Amino acid sequence: MKSFRALHQEKNTSARVGVLQTPHGIVETPAFIAVATQASVKSLTPRDLEEIGVQIIIANSYHLHLRPGEDLIFELGGLHKFMGWSGPLMTDSGGFQVFSLGAGMEQGVGKIASIFPEEGRPLPRGEKSRVRIDEDGVEFRSHLDGSILRLTPEKVIEIQAKLGADIILTLDECTSPLHDYEYTKEAMGRTHRWALRAFKKYAEIQRDSKQALFGIVQGGAYRDLREESAKFIGSLGFDGIAIGGSLGRSKREMHDVLEWTIPLLPEEKPRHLLGIGEVEDVFEIVGRGVDLFDCAAPTRMARNGALLVKGEEKFRLNICNSRYKDDPRPLEEGCKCYTCRNFSRAYLRHLFLAKELLAYKLATIHNLHFVVSLMKEVREAIRDRRFLELKERWMG
Amino acid sequence: MKSFRALHQEKNTSARVGVLQTPHGIVETPAFIAVATQASVKSLTPRDLEEIGVQIIIANSYHLHLRPGEDLIFELGGLHKFMGWSGPLMTDSGGFQVFSLGAGMEQGVGKIASIFPEEGRPLPRGEKSRVRIDEDGVEFRSHLDGSILRLTPEKVIEIQAKLGADIILTLDECTSPLHDYEYTKEAMGRTHRWALRAFKKYAEIQRDSKQALFGIVQGGAYRDLREESAKFIGSLGFDGIAIGGSLGRSKREMHDVLEWTIPLLPEEKPRHLLGIGEVEDVFEIVGRGVDLFDCAAPTRMARNGALLVKGEEKFRLNICNSRYKDDPRPLEEGCKCYTCRNFSRAYLRHLFLAKELLAYKLATIHNLHFVVSLMKEVREAIRDRRFLELKERWMG
Repeated sequence: MKSFRALHQEKNTSARVGVLQTPHGIVETPAFIAVATQASVKSLTPRDLEEIGVQIIIANSYHLHLRPGEDLIFELGGLHKFMGWSGPLMTDSGGFQVFSLGAGMEQGVGKIASIFPEEGRPLPRGEKSRVRIDEDGVEFRSHLDGSILRLTPEKVIEIQAKLGADIILTLDECTSPLHDYEYTKEAMGRTHRWALRAFKKYAEIQRDSKQALFGIVQGGAYRDLREESAKFIGSLGFDGIAIGGSLGRSKREMHDVLEWTIPLLPEEKPRHLLGIGEVEDVFEIVGRGVDLFDCAAPTRMARNGALLVKGEEKFRLNICNSRYKDDPRPLEEGCKCYTCRNFSRAYLRHLFLAKELLAYKLATIHNLHFVVSLMKEVREAIRDRRFLELKERWMG
Repeated sequence: MKSFRALHQEKNTSARVGVLQTPHGIVETPAFIAVATQASVKSLTPRDLEEIGVQIIIANSYHLHLRPGEDLIFELGGLHKFMGWSGPLMTDSGGFQVFSLGAGMEQGVGKIASIFPEEGRPLPRGEKSRVRIDEDGVEFRSHLDGSILRLTPEKVIEIQAKLGADIILTLDECTSPLHDYEYTKEAMGRTHRWALRAFKKYAEIQRDSKQALFGIVQGGAYRDLREESAKFIGSLGFDGIAIGGSLGRSKREMHDVLEWTIPLLPEEKPRHLLGIGEVEDVFEIVGRGVDLFDCAAPTRMARNGALLVKGEEKFRLNICNSRYKDDPRPLEEGCKCYTCRNFSRAYLRHLFLAKELLAYKLATIHNLHFVVSLMKEVREAIRDRRFLELKERWMG
């Protein structure tokens, strides 16, 4: 990917549509990126994803490095071929694991201190950090077998080159919302130096530049740090800019971070908000100029029986609730997903109570379809300069 | 279903092909019946089943009576509609649970004493029976919540009428291979009296006879009992005859049971061997005149990573074996299933090790496809009068 065009922009909002070109097809933005941490969007086949209309997915370098290993995937023809996905594909760098297995685990917090981490379960508060950070890189104690592995900015570029995704990310240090200003500043400086090292390594091994490299803005919920980081990372010539790290102690602070950061980024580059994007966030982040976002919530919620339905509180219908026991309706009237076209709420509830594997799949299909359809609606609204109207209609 | 035609019969074997007509389409026999105990073939959608070529599936009355209840399913339009399956459908009567939750559980044995039960995991030897049998029927202590429920031959017909499958079964007492002659004879007598009561109830409520009713032959591994039971059940005018219960202490004894039973059954009725049918059994049971068989082994094995591949010992490839770590080949060369067309052994092994939900689905697709394709080959061979040749080719 070397090409991105941001097409429209409406007054009184920074929402914009764009088209991202990758070696495996285009992505219309703003786009939701489905999470495939271990080279699988949990419970779904690539064909399911295509049918749902998922445009792009993101796998995780840290997880795939541990198992099955990037060399194995490389030998087998790369990650696309390995997992049977022929569309646009990203890999995350492992920077989020610096946080989730480190400070996040010790402090029991997520990227926004009031919520749990986007990836996985609530952290067991008080567990010992599995991470040690120094100038050179990060040392992890494997979450699988306790073995020690070291990731450096260079190593992470090498891993991702072997995996062969269309878009890759630099290694960063994702800090915690509970880190103070001093530490956040120190970590940001390290992230900047790592970005330079990653860029250098990338330039060395990616002479044909088939993979796009995104840099990551850090700086916690501190305005001057975010501004400094946005200017610095924005100036390095990355193909796109990701916004990562601690996003404060509330959704409001997360919005502030976007408002400080995005206006300082190069207009012509796609902007990716890392690991954020529940349904109730979509209009807020897109309205502030985010082009791409990945979030495990829709798929994780699906496996927990929290199904996305318009009109429900926070768009969540708890299918295990006894009120759906004999409900013959689909999850959502008019929904075109395979699940809604074929099954009743009563059947879905039965599958969840019976712990049938099919429950997780049917629920995941619906939740992803919900988000993908919402994003399509959002893009159409931006094109027609009625984004704020659509937001009002959805969010009241 | 009121119509069955057995078409061909080759010399030196009792293998035959036939066509079974049901209100939801035909079943070409001999046919494998996929197991959908709780109204779902584990991990698969109805669309997956159609694509694989599964002709007919079997759900379980005991399980569905407990959860979600036959009244609920009836209100929602019947089991076909509830689970989104539009093809031929059977329900089992709960007779197998008399054994699996009763003597089988106490004794820690399966329908053949040397193997574990076809349905579910190895029984916890020595656990207390959850079943009490008397002349009227069976009392179960629910495996879900310990509540007591009573099934009688009449009640089981009523339950199955509400579920609305195309083929239903009478309640029987499925004995254990460890039961002695006296007890087995006593239980067989009870099963016969229950068959009469079931038939009477069925005649009362099924005036239009849309559902076909199969009776069940019992008698353990005792020749005179099996012969008596075959003659008795065969004489009652059922639409088909199932062969149930204890099948001895070895595959050889199971084959004896078939050889004693089948020649005494009415030629023009389909014969269903209940709960048996691993790949290595197929030629033995079909060769003795079985038309239908249901077996959870292919789907259960799939979820355990035991994948059906010709040429492997007992047709089982253990995908978690490290030898498949970097194996780029499909499970089986030339296999037309979705899994083999799209994924390598290395990827499947990765999914199993990572405990990804997709593993179970892809494995189940392959194993069912394997069995369904084998049965198609078997039918073609019988039609062409080369069944024994095909058996030799497969079994050596």
